[in-house]
Amino acid sequence: MTHVANAHIQELAADVLYHLGLTYDKHDDGKLAKLFGDVKFFVTGGSADRMSKFAKHAAEALQIATPYGYEIAPIGSTSRYVIFKVGPILIASHGMGQPSVSILLHEVTKLLEYAGVKDAIYMRMGTCGGVGVAPGTVVLTSEGVNNKMESVHYVDVLDRTVARASICTPEVTEGLSAAASQLNYAYAVGKTLTCDDFYEGQGRLDGAICEYSLDDKMNFLRKAAGAGVKNIEMEARGFAAFCHRLNIPVGVACVALLNRLEGDQVTSTHETLKGYEERPAEIVLQFIKNKLGLSA
Amino acid sequence: MTHVANAHIQELAADVLYHLGLTYDKHDDGKLAKLFGDVKFFVTGGSADRMSKFAKHAAEALQIATPYGYEIAPIGSTSRYVIFKVGPILIASHGMGQPSVSILLHEVTKLLEYAGVKDAIYMRMGTCGGVGVAPGTVVLTSEGVNNKMESVHYVDVLDRTVARASICTPEVTEGLSAAASQLNYAYAVGKTLTCDDFYEGQGRLDGAICEYSLDDKMNFLRKAAGAGVKNIEMEARGFAAFCHRLNIPVGVACVALLNRLEGDQVTSTHETLKGYEERPAEIVLQFIKNKLGLSA
Repeated sequence: MTHVANAHIQELAADVLYHLGLTYDKHDDGKLAKLFGDVKFFVTGGSADRMSKFAKHAAEALQIATPYGYEIAPIGSTSRYVIFKVGPILIASHGMGQPSVSILLHEVTKLLEYAGVKDAIYMRMGTCGGVGVAPGTVVLTSEGVNNKMESVHYVDVLDRTVARASICTPEVTEGLSAAASQLNYAYAVGKTLTCDDFYEGQGRLDGAICEYSLDDKMNFLRKAAGAGVKNIEMEARGFAAFCHRLNIPVGVACVALLNRLEGDQVTSTHETLKGYEERPAEIVLQFIKNKLGLSA
Repeated sequence: MTHVANAHIQELAADVLYHLGLTYDKHDDGKLAKLFGDVKFFVTGGSADRMSKFAKHAAEALQIATPYGYEIAPIGSTSRYVIFKVGPILIASHGMGQPSVSILLHEVTKLLEYAGVKDAIYMRMGTCGGVGVAPGTVVLTSEGVNNKMESVHYVDVLDRTVARASICTPEVTEGLSAAASQLNYAYAVGKTLTCDDFYEGQGRLDGAICEYSLDDKMNFLRKAAGAGVKNIEMEARGFAAFCHRLNIPVGVACVALLNRLEGDQVTSTHETLKGYEERPAEIVLQFIKNKLGLSA
């Protein structure tokens, strides 16, 4: 197996990828290989709406014609994730937080393994709070860190806790940087602080529970900045750690909606924010075009 | 403030409940109190589809007439959670995993606080793997435990890690037990093991990464059973810990789709599973009817 580290599943005659709503059957005459064998990129982000929009955008950008009388539609089950296949790109929403991403990663990785795909590049795109970068800056993750600023993702495995390095693939990050430059978007490469919560973990003062002061918050954010953190979100650490463990090439591109060192309120206009939100998607698409030799 | 532990938000003139897509404005003449002041129950579960079905079911069960020419529709934004208000019940999907639940809890709790609601009962309903209970058994959580079998939820707050007791409210669990008895559903009260992952944390042998043996897995599951664990899922621990910290009455009812001590495959028929999945919702509705004095 290329990217799966599990001796047990070699024995499986069938594997229900429960949360995707897709099934592998050993005796199915290479069905998954026919459907997914050409996948070269897996692109994921939080919301179903945004990923649906990305699927249509990707088809246009890659000039993948939609058969007359058809439209791009989700594959598998839509009750947990929404998944699209557009040419060489598998696209899925991942929900919020590392546990939700984790389930998706396990099942998509098995799907691609069963389909015989090797070295597909995994990319997460999203929005984030910036740390010392201006709103609109796209932060490309070098490493995911936890609240102790360690580049490590701790995973509970049975009753043990296992530490896994959380590192993005330098070649992917370089490719994303090049794409950002081509598109003239401000970007920064740096560490990403991934939190399991939007309020207390990220030092916001407006949660339903807040047991610290503004000074505590600012000290924490400055400490993060001092450790090389450029942004804060809720998925990159586990995403990069999973891929790094399985030698899957991985990158993360998130646009900063605000600079947390200057406040917690998003003050940009709705129109400006909409423009910001499109940047990671456009960078990922430019990266894919470059990889496929489709660059204009 | 009744159920919010945050001195900072008393100063706020407005509060954008970002992920709900709802806003509180101090100068809005009690708008939230008018819309949400009558809420007595907050019911949440993983998927948007199931919660939409529950909303309709609740309206029927409570005989809340839908105005002619209208239908129950989501309130706020649907891009992350799907939320309904049916009479005294606020209903929302929570996605998968504790981080996703955490954001919802912070924002719903602030919403109810701004609306002047006191002592609303929070209930999570869902599906789970049973531990030593037959498929179809509804497990009512007494305490949420982690993979060390501690009834504690660790929350990263800035650069510290804070331990919070994860305990459901005995009165709520008793009320849910009584409702289960009335409906003649098999139920058990016990500890719930909450994992941040569906595969490695829960001892499944079919993830994309599996670095342990069948023996390791069975030892872990038996250890959990020995500690009083009756089921395994991905949300109860954080859900109960948040509510316990804020003195919010809380209960969790999840139906076991299988007994993990006997295998990992769900072998019941689709029809049987559909019947099982309705049990927690029916128990929660019976509980609500009992509380409102609507019992038949």
